[in-house]
Amino acid sequence: MSDDIKKFEEVFYGLAKDLGQQCIEHEKVPAQVWNWFEKSLNYNVTGGKYNRGISVIHTTRLLLGRDLDSDEYLHAATLGWLVELLQAMMLVLDDIMDSAATRRGRPCWYLMPDVGMIAVNDAPMLESAIYILLKKHFRQHPAYVEMIELLQNVSFQVELGQTYDMLVAIRDLESFNLETYNGIATHKTSCYSFYLPVALALFYTGRSSARNLDQARNILLSMGRYFQAQDDYLDNFADPATLGKIGTDIRDRKCSWLAMRICNEEQMVALRENSGRDDDDCEKRVKQLYNQLELDKVYSMYEETAMKEINGLIDDVDEGDGLTKTVFTAFLDKIYGRSK
Amino acid sequence: MSDDIKKFEEVFYGLAKDLGQQCIEHEKVPAQVWNWFEKSLNYNVTGGKYNRGISVIHTTRLLLGRDLDSDEYLHAATLGWLVELLQAMMLVLDDIMDSAATRRGRPCWYLMPDVGMIAVNDAPMLESAIYILLKKHFRQHPAYVEMIELLQNVSFQVELGQTYDMLVAIRDLESFNLETYNGIATHKTSCYSFYLPVALALFYTGRSSARNLDQARNILLSMGRYFQAQDDYLDNFADPATLGKIGTDIRDRKCSWLAMRICNEEQMVALRENSGRDDDDCEKRVKQLYNQLELDKVYSMYEETAMKEINGLIDDVDEGDGLTKTVFTAFLDKIYGRSK
Repeated sequence: MSDDIKKFEEVFYGLAKDLGQQCIEHEKVPAQVWNWFEKSLNYNVTGGKYNRGISVIHTTRLLLGRDLDSDEYLHAATLGWLVELLQAMMLVLDDIMDSAATRRGRPCWYLMPDVGMIAVNDAPMLESAIYILLKKHFRQHPAYVEMIELLQNVSFQVELGQTYDMLVAIRDLESFNLETYNGIATHKTSCYSFYLPVALALFYTGRSSARNLDQARNILLSMGRYFQAQDDYLDNFADPATLGKIGTDIRDRKCSWLAMRICNEEQMVALRENSGRDDDDCEKRVKQLYNQLELDKVYSMYEETAMKEINGLIDDVDEGDGLTKTVFTAFLDKIYGRSK
Repeated sequence: MSDDIKKFEEVFYGLAKDLGQQCIEHEKVPAQVWNWFEKSLNYNVTGGKYNRGISVIHTTRLLLGRDLDSDEYLHAATLGWLVELLQAMMLVLDDIMDSAATRRGRPCWYLMPDVGMIAVNDAPMLESAIYILLKKHFRQHPAYVEMIELLQNVSFQVELGQTYDMLVAIRDLESFNLETYNGIATHKTSCYSFYLPVALALFYTGRSSARNLDQARNILLSMGRYFQAQDDYLDNFADPATLGKIGTDIRDRKCSWLAMRICNEEQMVALRENSGRDDDDCEKRVKQLYNQLELDKVYSMYEETAMKEINGLIDDVDEGDGLTKTVFTAFLDKIYGRSK
């Protein structure tokens, strides 16, 4: 485990203590209720890579152009954990909706012994934790209200993205197109994974002018769309040993970036007939189609264009209000050319 | 339908329009995503009795001591709909957790064709609607932040109450006692049904001194506990024709007020063995036990004591900060001696 991760996790234990105190001392629930909540927090919120949470800390550092003192680190890390909580809430529900089996190499929470459908209540509890912690640590911050509104809006974006995904990608493959693909990626993933951490850092450092938020949003949502396409490409073309998992997009009938590139009618029919089935031959047929169409090359070309566009946007950033280009190049460096 | 209900429902159509505008114009999701959300809003939020929502309007009127003008009505009704949204969110999840079949005489939302587990995402969308509407209509209100915090805290109370209920009442009948019973009733029901509507009216009318909120909380949580006991009594002893439904607490193994009164060990064993089963004879045995113990008389005595206590609290209300006793007597009049 890297030092970054270890240091970040230490903050979590403190925040969990805050939540325990809230439950026991303020809300006066018995210990067994808090113990359950704590179990859910530990299981669902920790154990990931914390890319999103830690990026709040990195962004804060880049915005200030210097190392953080211990209070600043604690604040930025706390905001980072709010992002992780939001993600955890969403993943618990996502796994139920997808009837998924595993998450981060362990059984999904709703499949754990004694959990089951209590999970549908545990998810909003993770969301409640966001606002309890925000109130405890940022009630006096000048951007407290704006941070609440940001988190609420981003939760809503994710929920809209889920609906979009469920209605279109899963039930209505026919109406799937580039616009739909980007719409889902933006609402469901980019907004909370890319925009949210930077926006929180901007609010925290007092650099949240409308212009800064707009610029950040515009660039980070573009980057998020590229990231999603990359994810879909890796699901099919990456070496499973490097990727750390075997791609399941075809079997899940997930409307991936690759599926989206299937343009003619005949290929579309083949895709519809052979995806979403738990059958080796069907999966093979879709893979053959991807290879036939040389989607790996199509992806390389897409990647080049996407990088050009994103770099162009970064070049154009107006740093006058304290937003720095380094915030975005740091993000981009982390994802460009990744192999997992 | 009463005029009160009709007028209140008209406000909902306006609020639904606000939400449509937010989805389409601000969040730029396609019409089909909004149409889904709208369907969920109509199905899950309307069709109830609106006691909780309408009580925000009544309380506001009692606090001001006069009729509301049309703007005031719109504001109070909007806050009333936030309470109804919070309840709707909770009921959608509650039905999934309980594997319930019907709600308000119709199939539960998660059992509707094409819905299924998307319901676990629709519930947090109903919660998001609360904050979108609050922001749209109360962003400039001096108590905006306090109202957000109140709604968030009450949601958390309900979630804690659910956890409590799932862990104790369903899984651990042995540790069930009066304290547990009251704890669950307070968190799961009283807080959002009784305290929330009055607290919102206090914030709206600018009468939300700490003293007023404390007094209101204290009285309304007592009243809510009484209401819950009454509910449990009616489930067993009321005429199903008057009640409008056949009680299912015994079959659901719900730790009702009546179950709680089963004190000796032998009776407790009989209760554990015969409740929670879909079997006529088992249910009959529990009912016999209730009759043997004359729980209807025990309830009458409890009711008398509870009314005395609540009336005593109301008599002691300090009206100096603009809180009026009428707020509480109006609530109590609505529930005392109800037969359904």
